[in-house]
Amino acid sequence: MSVDVAAEINFQDQLVVDQNAAAALFMEARTANSWTAEEISDETLKAVYSLTRMGPTAMNIQPLRITWVRSAEARERLVSHMAQGNKGKTLTAPVVAILSYDTQWHEMLSTTAPHAASKASTFADNDALRHSMAEKNAHIQAGYFILAARAAGLAAGPMTGFDTAGVDAEFNADKQCKAFMVVNLGRPNGVIDRERLHRLDSDVATATV
Amino acid sequence: MSVDVAAEINFQDQLVVDQNAAAALFMEARTANSWTAEEISDETLKAVYSLTRMGPTAMNIQPLRITWVRSAEARERLVSHMAQGNKGKTLTAPVVAILSYDTQWHEMLSTTAPHAASKASTFADNDALRHSMAEKNAHIQAGYFILAARAAGLAAGPMTGFDTAGVDAEFNADKQCKAFMVVNLGRPNGVIDRERLHRLDSDVATATV
Repeated sequence: MSVDVAAEINFQDQLVVDQNAAAALFMEARTANSWTAEEISDETLKAVYSLTRMGPTAMNIQPLRITWVRSAEARERLVSHMAQGNKGKTLTAPVVAILSYDTQWHEMLSTTAPHAASKASTFADNDALRHSMAEKNAHIQAGYFILAARAAGLAAGPMTGFDTAGVDAEFNADKQCKAFMVVNLGRPNGVIDRERLHRLDSDVATATV
Repeated sequence: MSVDVAAEINFQDQLVVDQNAAAALFMEARTANSWTAEEISDETLKAVYSLTRMGPTAMNIQPLRITWVRSAEARERLVSHMAQGNKGKTLTAPVVAILSYDTQWHEMLSTTAPHAASKASTFADNDALRHSMAEKNAHIQAGYFILAARAAGLAAGPMTGFDTAGVDAEFNADKQCKAFMVVNLGRPNGVIDRERLHRLDSDVATATV
């Protein structure tokens, strides 16, 4: 994208993070379909989670669950449920994360939200509300996760093109967690598959009243 | 939270953003219920949107719509639909954002995703899929938005405790947008209402296969 230099300087003046951070998380990061061969350490993945979990959720319910797919055997099982166009990417990514939401988050309220623990039985009785809160808040957390991965120097490739029931049968056999996104992760290799797609102008997507 | 210094240094080694950025976006930022009296300029809000819009969405559909609530008249209308416990905060925040999702995002596919524009009529015929994609992707974007606000030095107070139908009737009269979150925004005033709530350990929320 062409950027007016004066406008860019003015933009940076509005931020409390430096240009490098704004670029790494938002402005220059790209969704990736291929990566360098570098392996991603458990320490890096732990850092991604340590950042992700700090973002706010309703009542602090934190429904997001992450399954890091490392073994060749688990990778094959996951790929078998991916849409055709996603199989190759998920086979070749250095590491893959399955993002799920825990529908039984109310069981942890005494830990996550002691002030609201007395409401646990009300939530226990309302499956629809509990599932809806889990799904919505885990999607908010998916936003944190993608930016956290970038903060740890990873290029993310989020996908929803997979058979969720199949992935749940393989990886969420406890039944209480539901997979909603698969994210390929690795170090950026600089390959640009296509120009960045258009972002909506502020006068299209925002209004002031 | 007490932090082991050695562990913290090791953690920072995993990141490509500096400690200030990690603190501002994730580690030290807090949900706010009160703010300084400083007014928030249109330029700052524009910077928040400029960051938010860069995060990835499925097919680049970008369903998030933001209504910045500035006038006293609009503020009163919004507050009348907030839950009792949220009215005071929304009355006193320097500026408030209503986040909505646009259910008619397919009408912009020729701009947002030219490669997928031929699918617009398929989406036009499938209200349930279109609404679900809008809601999920706008929640992911809400995650970007909260972190973008923090990157612009704002303390966010996201809330879902309001009458969505009432807010839609007031602010989304075109019917195609649905409000799902209201976010109070202002400069952090350093007031800590309570200790940070517990975040789930990685061995609770993550697993490796």
